[in-house]
Amino acid sequence: MTLNPTADLSAHVQRGLDDLKALVALQSVSAQGRMLGETAAAVTALLEAEGFTVRAFPGQVAPVLVAEAGEGPFTLLIYNHYDVQPEDPVDLWATPPFELTERDGRLYGRGASDDKGEFISRLAGLRVLKEQRGGRLPLRVKWLIEGEEEVGSPSLEAFIAGHAAELSADGVWWEFGSITPEGRPVLYAGLKGIVCLELRCRVAASDLHSSNGAVVDNPLWRLAAAVASLRGPDGTVLIPGFHDDVRPSSAADQAAIEALPGQGETLRETYEVTRPLGDPGEYHTRLNLKPVVNVNGFHGGYEGEGSKTVLPAEGMVKLDFRLVPDQDPARVVQLLRAHLDAQDFRDIEIIELESHQHPARSDLNHAFVQTAVRVAGAVHGVAPILNPSSGGSGPMYPFMQHVGAPVIALGIGNIGGRVHAPNENILRRDFENGVRFTAAFLAELADGQRSA
Amino acid sequence: MTLNPTADLSAHVQRGLDDLKALVALQSVSAQGRMLGETAAAVTALLEAEGFTVRAFPGQVAPVLVAEAGEGPFTLLIYNHYDVQPEDPVDLWATPPFELTERDGRLYGRGASDDKGEFISRLAGLRVLKEQRGGRLPLRVKWLIEGEEEVGSPSLEAFIAGHAAELSADGVWWEFGSITPEGRPVLYAGLKGIVCLELRCRVAASDLHSSNGAVVDNPLWRLAAAVASLRGPDGTVLIPGFHDDVRPSSAADQAAIEALPGQGETLRETYEVTRPLGDPGEYHTRLNLKPVVNVNGFHGGYEGEGSKTVLPAEGMVKLDFRLVPDQDPARVVQLLRAHLDAQDFRDIEIIELESHQHPARSDLNHAFVQTAVRVAGAVHGVAPILNPSSGGSGPMYPFMQHVGAPVIALGIGNIGGRVHAPNENILRRDFENGVRFTAAFLAELADGQRSA
Repeated sequence: MTLNPTADLSAHVQRGLDDLKALVALQSVSAQGRMLGETAAAVTALLEAEGFTVRAFPGQVAPVLVAEAGEGPFTLLIYNHYDVQPEDPVDLWATPPFELTERDGRLYGRGASDDKGEFISRLAGLRVLKEQRGGRLPLRVKWLIEGEEEVGSPSLEAFIAGHAAELSADGVWWEFGSITPEGRPVLYAGLKGIVCLELRCRVAASDLHSSNGAVVDNPLWRLAAAVASLRGPDGTVLIPGFHDDVRPSSAADQAAIEALPGQGETLRETYEVTRPLGDPGEYHTRLNLKPVVNVNGFHGGYEGEGSKTVLPAEGMVKLDFRLVPDQDPARVVQLLRAHLDAQDFRDIEIIELESHQHPARSDLNHAFVQTAVRVAGAVHGVAPILNPSSGGSGPMYPFMQHVGAPVIALGIGNIGGRVHAPNENILRRDFENGVRFTAAFLAELADGQRSA
Repeated sequence: MTLNPTADLSAHVQRGLDDLKALVALQSVSAQGRMLGETAAAVTALLEAEGFTVRAFPGQVAPVLVAEAGEGPFTLLIYNHYDVQPEDPVDLWATPPFELTERDGRLYGRGASDDKGEFISRLAGLRVLKEQRGGRLPLRVKWLIEGEEEVGSPSLEAFIAGHAAELSADGVWWEFGSITPEGRPVLYAGLKGIVCLELRCRVAASDLHSSNGAVVDNPLWRLAAAVASLRGPDGTVLIPGFHDDVRPSSAADQAAIEALPGQGETLRETYEVTRPLGDPGEYHTRLNLKPVVNVNGFHGGYEGEGSKTVLPAEGMVKLDFRLVPDQDPARVVQLLRAHLDAQDFRDIEIIELESHQHPARSDLNHAFVQTAVRVAGAVHGVAPILNPSSGGSGPMYPFMQHVGAPVIALGIGNIGGRVHAPNENILRRDFENGVRFTAAFLAELADGQRSA
């Protein structure tokens, strides 16, 4: 460890919070195209002040920024984003959403956690390291900061594929991750893939009286039978071939899963879940490693009070598949089509929606991953929680595919952080530790990774 | 035949249309409780003018009228209703809904067909018969006219059960029935039963992020699997025991079905049906004799554009079962519960909605049914179309159970009659023939039925 863990970082923390206050004030809502150019310019100025060369590339709604600085044997690619979710409903905010406000140890504001606070904690940590090294950044840092993450990163995969050489790195530090209420950092070495689809079935040009159900098929029954066929009662996907490309979990994955705390009690209690799927002992295995299909919506026919004897002309189902390495989204769509055809559901239309993502999972034994875990433990003074994969999804795969480096996610969010909701916040404690972790992590990478 | 089919009935038809105009003007919308007392009084006055003794009994929203007149060896119970559907949307009416208006051979107005026009055509026909018999009605006519039919006849079954002796009859003439564009009368000797249910499933107190689909069950999948299990691809209900009480169809039923014209072409063309159920050759068998389950609605989760990665907390399905003799609605609910339980769907709640009805079907060989068919053929000059049962449902069973007489439905509706919709209408031709049929039918019943 090349950083004194008791060093006084208060000046850097304060400067970071000042930067964060200015950045939160910029209403960079990508879904509404608000202030994205101004925010990209502010991010650029912050990076240039630290010696970064910053280039801006056009995205679909906001520029993609690529910054580079430092020299050394290790090249780290950092991924963040400067756009935020809409602030609605504004009435539910205790303080104005675009004014960073501190109370009771928390900093409130849209983007305070996701992802401006995280970005600034990393920038402040980088400043700490430079100060300790006489103004020099002792490793190569490439920083990719997009402004379209909250609208599904529509430009990102093609951008990374088209700039693979420029983005080459020895390790990728992903956005997001959180700290438990007890102060334990939660790391993720992977994300599930996702395929979002709509199924549609239509049997007639308009609704019929339901007495005709004897002689006209029912689109809601057809969709129900198709949906029922996709998985078993335990959630196992039953589409032939679906599991063929699932990579066996490694011994390291299994060991990490066994070390994870709890068995889902918090989730079940928070949401008053009456039908958990799988045994509690399988909780982390299922969440990290099991591909699943979800029914997000099912709609057709009458919805009001009482009965209506209608035979609906059509119905619609929304599905998402959560995939694990090495399942391929396009292949999953093909397998679903073949499965529906084989069951005589040729009339059910599949519509591919946005947001397909490949799954990605790094080798937990990789020195880069191990370094992140070790430094996080040292900075926070407690054993980190290392998940082989999040149950969620995001554009991690293009980094692994095109940059060819392992990816680790570790951030400064918290379970009460209300990301995407009113009163988004971070703990001041977690911001400070984020600054400290960044300085230590970059120093460790610069000075040579020790093997685990 | 005791009625001269070429007799000039024009005065009676005109008087009937005047009566109908006055009755249509009374806005007896039972769903909104409008003018039901006034309409019951007007109907009472019309009947008393023909010598009926009329008693009014309280219903849930409108009086039930029971009228009696005439003397003779045969007792006929006629069933009609004086309430109508709401006139909305008013903008789509070409002429005011409560002003009976004639154009191009049709009479337009709310209730012109369902059921005021039918009632008045019968009253006018009864006047014809009386005039021919010197002012005497040569059979006993009991007339049950309710004002709650359009809200599901909530009082009817208990009323009939409680007045079975007073309502005893040798035959029951039901409301509804229609005339084809070619002028062929369509008779029904039965109605399917109906059970309307809602299924509900809930897995949590609020929606979750769909990444949790690995560890929390999905209520829409559970409902889909439950719905899928109810029937096969050909529509056959798969609930164990469901078919146990189905009465085998008689030779007369089979002969009637084979004589029915067409194979559903009109329905399929009208609604542009792309998925007919069953072979065309089975069309009438399925519609008349096959019990079915319909999915009327299926709702839960996201319905908007694109994708939303949500795991919905709950979902809801609306079903109706169409039953045939001698299936029992209460027994069907029990069998469904047992079926769901046996498949581990104990958590799916069944909510019974209004409108349960027993199935009912008369013996086609009964002299009363045969008389109706024969007289209809003579009056219309063409072979009638006799359906053992409608595919639809209604409160016919209480009449058969408590009155103990066969029931036949023959009315004056038409395929373009827009019943329950704007521009409801009847053909003047069909009204006139309805008057003629009533006079002939009552005369034939009074003078003694000939066996077929």
